Parts: sequence; structure tokens; C-alpha cells
Amino acid sequence: MGPEEFRVAGHKLIDWIADYRARIPQLPVQAQVGPGEVAAKLPGRAPEEAEPFARVLADLGDIIVPGVTQVQHPRYFGWFPSNASLASVLGDLATSGIGALGITWQSAPALTEVEEVVVEWLRELTALPESWRGVIQDTASSACLVALLAARERATNYSEARGGLQAERAPLTVYTTEHAHSSIAKAVALAGFGRENLRFADVDPVTYAMDPQALARILAEDAAQGLRPAAVVVNVGTTGTTAVDPLAQIVPLARQYGMWVHVDAAMAGSALLLPEMRWLIDGVDGADSLAWNPHKWLGTVLDCALLYVADPAHLIRVMSTNPSYLRSAVDGEVTQYKDWGIPLGRRFRALKLWFHLRLDGVEAIRARLRRDLEHARWLAEQVSSAPGWRILAPVALQTVVLRHEPSGLVSDAGAVLDADALNAHTLAWADSVNRSGAALVTPALLDGTWSVRVSIGAERTERPDVEALWRLLQQAAADA
Amino acid sequence: MGPEEFRVAGHKLIDWIADYRARIPQLPVQAQVGPGEVAAKLPGRAPEEAEPFARVLADLGDIIVPGVTQVQHPRYFGWFPSNASLASVLGDLATSGIGALGITWQSAPALTEVEEVVVEWLRELTALPESWRGVIQDTASSACLVALLAARERATNYSEARGGLQAERAPLTVYTTEHAHSSIAKAVALAGFGRENLRFADVDPVTYAMDPQALARILAEDAAQGLRPAAVVVNVGTTGTTAVDPLAQIVPLARQYGMWVHVDAAMAGSALLLPEMRWLIDGVDGADSLAWNPHKWLGTVLDCALLYVADPAHLIRVMSTNPSYLRSAVDGEVTQYKDWGIPLGRRFRALKLWFHLRLDGVEAIRARLRRDLEHARWLAEQVSSAPGWRILAPVALQTVVLRHEPSGLVSDAGAVLDADALNAHTLAWADSVNRSGAALVTPALLDGTWSVRVSIGAERTERPDVEALWRLLQQAAADA
Repeated sequence: MGPEEFRVAGHKLIDWIADYRARIPQLPVQAQVGPGEVAAKLPGRAPEEAEPFARVLADLGDIIVPGVTQVQHPRYFGWFPSNASLASVLGDLATSGIGALGITWQSAPALTEVEEVVVEWLRELTALPESWRGVIQDTASSACLVALLAARERATNYSEARGGLQAERAPLTVYTTEHAHSSIAKAVALAGFGRENLRFADVDPVTYAMDPQALARILAEDAAQGLRPAAVVVNVGTTGTTAVDPLAQIVPLARQYGMWVHVDAAMAGSALLLPEMRWLIDGVDGADSLAWNPHKWLGTVLDCALLYVADPAHLIRVMSTNPSYLRSAVDGEVTQYKDWGIPLGRRFRALKLWFHLRLDGVEAIRARLRRDLEHARWLAEQVSSAPGWRILAPVALQTVVLRHEPSGLVSDAGAVLDADALNAHTLAWADSVNRSGAALVTPALLDGTWSVRVSIGAERTERPDVEALWRLLQQAAADA
Repeated sequence: MGPEEFRVAGHKLIDWIADYRARIPQLPVQAQVGPGEVAAKLPGRAPEEAEPFARVLADLGDIIVPGVTQVQHPRYFGWFPSNASLASVLGDLATSGIGALGITWQSAPALTEVEEVVVEWLRELTALPESWRGVIQDTASSACLVALLAARERATNYSEARGGLQAERAPLTVYTTEHAHSSIAKAVALAGFGRENLRFADVDPVTYAMDPQALARILAEDAAQGLRPAAVVVNVGTTGTTAVDPLAQIVPLARQYGMWVHVDAAMAGSALLLPEMRWLIDGVDGADSLAWNPHKWLGTVLDCALLYVADPAHLIRVMSTNPSYLRSAVDGEVTQYKDWGIPLGRRFRALKLWFHLRLDGVEAIRARLRRDLEHARWLAEQVSSAPGWRILAPVALQTVVLRHEPSGLVSDAGAVLDADALNAHTLAWADSVNRSGAALVTPALLDGTWSVRVSIGAERTERPDVEALWRLLQQAAADA
């Protein structure tokens, strides 16, 4: 396809996207297709001859749109906000159109330097320590793995350069809580620590935040047994309930044992743009790394995660390679992001952040985040004052964890009397909401019983959408 | 930004990209900026107020374009082809515009199923074994790390679920050659094997391909010392010279020692679309995994790597997590790509491959690949027959490794007599070509001496571009 053909098709696709975004409120939120239904509509082999653009565009509307859950829908309250702001979509289009190759500074100086500038903009906006430096990764999962690899290498004085982790003797251990995201346990496994060496500190039974005294206890026990505490992952805004581990109280323990402190703020990081929410990371000066995802609540289109580190020289030593075909005369003077993560080749992801911040402006983004926090407080008030309903966790951010509790299934004090019946009821009404396509919520286990997470923060969600959701939930629970 | 504002800005950006692509031949290939020059043009803080689109668009032309090396230029012969076909740019725009969230099948069934279908299209097009299954990753670096993690877990019977690699005793070892890409040594280090447990088998001195007898020797030595050979990385098209390790001869050795066989065909994988090039992976039936990058020569815009595995159930066991908030009723019936790699959240990358194959058509892509192979053969012939020039490695694919050898610096038989003078000469003329902006080539060390790689395969490179390059090289060498 040449530039003129691209121009014609591109204009059609831009119009298609604008029309699609405008009609999203009329679409069902949850995809209404069954397993294999999309695949069955596609031919078994790639076409030998080029197809006309009109046919591909028609397939977008006929096959792809009905086949995705509409996370840009104003009544999407599922997993977590996954906003793809149109400003960032333009930035990403510029990225693809320019088609730069990010392997070294030399291959695309602007790719490196815009990234340096934009992650510094966001460092300042989120009030992270001035000396910290950042890098764009694909997801917080990868960022956490990178952080734990850095922790492993600090604890072993760069075992990777010698016999590797397999040559180490007393097992290294990693600490977090059972409420940590699944990617933490995965990173522990992939980094070679072994799942048995992942320790869960107890949480406060009301806030679900890590109990620092519980952490102190297991650290003392493990150290007494000759284990080597290497890292603690502090959850700032857990996936289940947005619980906030007390970073300021964990840091002194980490220092005592020489542990790496990684802060997982994948969802909550966006809130750090609000000065009134900076309490979330009180104590961050004593941490080693922090990751959060602009591709969630902030709304920079997937994939865009930020990893900040206190000691970039250490990260670079863990990750660097220097083959002759990538060397250049400026190597000592520039940032080589290939040495800040796993992949060598990188996409010019900084452009989508750059476009997003410039075309939307920070003040409007802050206003949207505040709007969502206010929506969550409003919903929590409605639920708290409605008979038969219960809020199950503090509403620290934009997520409300709730349950409808028909009489007899739960005691007044909140003790579950008939878990099976309660679970069946919860899953039934949540499923009916989701199947209806009118809104989407996410069931999740909390203390072994099913609850429902309402995660507010889609870019287009306004108060009437939250009000409509609350009516829907009440109706669904009554009908179940 | 709302849909109507997006529509207006989007049309402008599409026109900008079409115009930009059309004028690339007039731009210098290598970016002509020094360290810090791009960053100095950007403000130190993010804007509080939204900026007009015109200002952002102007910065694209004024700051970004001069700040990137033009890898879409017809006279780009650097590192490796990094084509961003405009058909795939449209597919990627659709991805961003739809803004789907890929965390489970349920969150975007079409994201999963189009990926399944398209990677199957490409499996069939590249004649990989029918039973193999594939997944899109960001880069071959990540794909290789995933393959080596799978190898580690097979060799240790899933140590990750117990005490991890640190609980294993006799060291696991990994094998490849010194010509393997730098990402292989990095993956070995990150997976915890330790760089000392990466073994390089000698290569054939003419072809730079792994010598299977040399591999057999070090395997026997290592096994006799109680080491545990866990994996061999077979290079199909090395970065330096596109050397092709003899997979069919390596597989029986791997079987004898129970090693995982990973095939790194990052660059060369595109050639597998040509039936006459399938000899590259003779013996692949006995391998365990293969990775290649459509974002290189094939031309699907970065980032798009394919990882195929013979035993997906094993990979899933190594990578899977199953938190309650990601469960759904269809879990047993569908593919969950979160369990096929490191990140949880995934972008709808399959659309760019789908658009690319459909809008360009496979036959036209094959014709372009054949054109590039023919260009490489033509250039190799010119170089071979020019006095004072030497081809330094077999031209198996689209890369020509060459050197200009002024009299007295190299013997007639090819022995380097004055390495310092030869290196200075080579780097001087290659640098003058690159600094001129007229073309880009990549100097690289081969047998300890600098050579120049001419990697042919930019989408717009036609015969006159290769002819012009050859004139440029001769002029630069004469002037140096």
C-alpha cells in the first residue's frame, strides 16, 4: 500500500472510529458472543490477493466490534478502567505512521529523548522523588518482573554474571500480601525464586492492607531460619479492594533486612496526579521502584506502563548488553532504554503519552479523576444506606466492593451464615447484569466469599451512568 | 477529546503521514541530531491547559521527524529491515481506536480469536508443524526469555512451583554460538541460569554456523562433569552474518540430552513464506519453539513477534495464574493468552497482522521478499568482482557482509595484516556514508575485525537504490 492509497483508506478509518466511539453507548457492554463464534467467521487461510479496504472495514464493524467487551462504554464498571483517550490514539497513530525503530539512542534519538522528557513530566506530576528515573514498559506485570530481577541481582551481588540464581544457597524470599495482583506471584515464579519462597504477610481484617507487625514477625522467623529476605512488594491499591499497604511503615523493615521495596500502583498511580491523594505513597523516598499504568485510569491507550527506579545504574547493570552492531560514538552520553527492560526493540510509545497530556491538558485529566472519586463516594453512600446491601471494604479510590445480602444469609454483624446460598445469589445477579449488556461489573472472591467490584473510571462515565448502574444492581438483586 | 474533535484532527494526521511517507526519500537516512538536542526543544513540564492540535502536529514535523533515523527510507540498509507497512499502520490504528482490553478471552473474545486465526495463517504460510500453536509477543527478546523459562521448568519438573531455580543443585546449562543475538545471553542471565552456564559451541570458520560436532563435544564434557544441559538456542539467520545453524543435526543431540530446542529466526522468519527458503528450518519437527518478527522484514509495524511452541500445555503451566476476578464460565473452552507470556494485559496486535496480510496480499509480500534476496545476490556479485573488496560471509539471505581492503592491509588469502589500520579505514568510510545521510549501513565486528553489514529489505528499496549504495560505498572507501 502506497501513501495515496493509505490516505484514502485512512480517512475512511478515522471516520469509522469517530462514528464508532460516538455510538458506543448504544452497544452492549459485554461481548455477546460465545467461544469460537468470531473465529468461525474468518477464513482458514491468508488471502493470496490483496482485498479491498471496504471489505476489511466492513469486517471491523460486523465481526470485531460485536466481539469485544466495550471497555470504552460509559457503563463499563468491570475489572479496572482501561481508557483509550482519543488524544492518545492520535499519538499512537503518529508512532505507527513514522515507523521508527527503537533499539538504541542512535536508531531514533527522539524516541529516547521524548520518552525521557515525558516520564519526567509524569514523575513531577506524581511527586515521585526528584532523583528517580523512569522508563515505559508494556505492562505492570513486566515492570514487576523487572523490579524483582533487579532485587534478585542486588541480593546476590549480580549472580547473573556468574553461576546464576541456581548457584545461590540460602533461599531468597519475597514478601507481599494475598491481595497482591496475580502478576506478583507470577513474577516471583518466573524470576526463579519459587512460589514457596513467596511469603504473604497478614492483612488488617477491615482495610485489607498489609499489617506491618505481621510482616515484621515473618521476617524475623525467616531470618532466624537462615532465609534471605530479598524484596517486598507493596500494594498501593490492590486489584480486589484498592487496599493501600502502609509503605511508610514497611520501608524501615525493608531497610533492616536490606530488602528491595517495589511499589505496585498499577491502577492507583493515576490518582497521584491529585495532590490530595499523595498520601497513598507516603514513605516512597525509601522505596526502590514503583510501577503504574497510564493505560488504565489515566487513559493512555494500551500498552503503556511506567516503571520508576531510584538507582538506574543498578537496573542498567542487570539488563545491559553491548553487541558491536549496536555501538555508536555517543554511547556514554545518552540513555539506552534497551538496558532498562527485557525487549531490545521498542515502539515509540512516548508519543501517545505526549499527545495525551498535551491535547487533553493536565487540569482536565485531574478534574476527570476527581469526578470518578466523587462518583465512587456517592455510590458507596447509596449502598451503605440501602437495606440488605453492604460495602465490604473501605472506598479508598474509585472502586466500590459491595454485596446484596438477603435476610438470613448474613448476620447483622456481617458474619456469613450460608456461604453457598450467598455465593449463588451474588453470582446470579452479577451475571444477569453482565449478560444484559446494560453494564458490566466484576465478581471477585473476598475472604473466600463472592463479592462484586464496581470499578468506576471509564472516561465517558458521568453521574447518570452511576445512578443507572445502582438502579440496575438493585433490580438484578431483587429479581435473582 | 471527543469523537468530532478526533475526526478533524485525525484527518489532518492521516494527511500528514501520507505526505511524510511520500517525502521520506528526500530526508537524510540517519538522524542528524546530537545528544540532548531533541530534549532541549521540549518544555520541562506537562501543559496544564490543552494545546491546539496544530501545535502538536507542527512539532511532529519540526522535532520528531529530524530526530529519528528513517528506517522506512529506500536507502536504509542498517541493522535489519524494520518495515512499517501502511496496511499494518491502518490495522494498528483500528486497534487503538477500538481500545479493547486483552486480559482474558472474556474481556475481548475477538482479540483472542483473531490472534489465533492469524498466527495459524502464518504457521501455515511458514510451513511450521501442524500441531504447533502460536502467540504474538512484543519482541523476539521476550519470546526467547519465555522459551528459556519453559526450558528451565521442563528441566526442573516445575521448580517454580516449589523452591525455584535456587533450590536446584547441578547447574543447568544452555548452548548456542557466539554469533547468537545479544538477547540470548540476556535471557540466560534473566532466567537465572547465570552467564557462566551459557556455553558457546564453535562455528564453522567459513559459514559462521554452529558446528554440531563441536556442540557434541562440549555437551559430552559438561555431562561428564555433572552439569545438566537444559536448552540449545539454534540461530537461523544470525544478526551478524545471517548464518544458519544446522537444526537437523542439532535436534538429535538435543534429544539425547533432553534439551529444549529454541529456534531464533527473528529476522529470517519472513523468508519462510518462500517455499524455496524452507531449508532454513529443516528438522524443525524436532524443535520445541521458534520465534520470528513480522515487525522486521515482513513489515508489520513494531511491535509484533511470533512465538510458536510444540507443547502449549507446558507453556501454559509455566505461565498461568487464575485469580478470581479473571474467572469466567467459559474458561475451559477458550484460549487465555495471558498464560502464554509475561504480561497480563495485551493490546489487540492481531489486527495489524490481519490488515497487513489482507490489504497487501501474500503473493505481493512474497514477491517483495524475493526481490530483496535478488538485490542481495546482485550486490554480492558486484562486490566479489571489484578489486580491493571482499565478501566476508555467505549471502544466505538479504544481508551482505563486506569490507574494502586497501593493499597491504590484508593478504590475498584474506589474512588481516594490519588490523588497526584496516579497522580505522572501515569505520571511517562507513561513518562517512552514514553521516552523509545518503544511506545507512551498520559496522559490526566479525572475527574481531570491523566489517560492514548491508542489510537489504526496506519496503521501498528498489534496484536503483542498491546500485546507488554500491556507488556510494566505493566513493566513500576511495575518499577515506
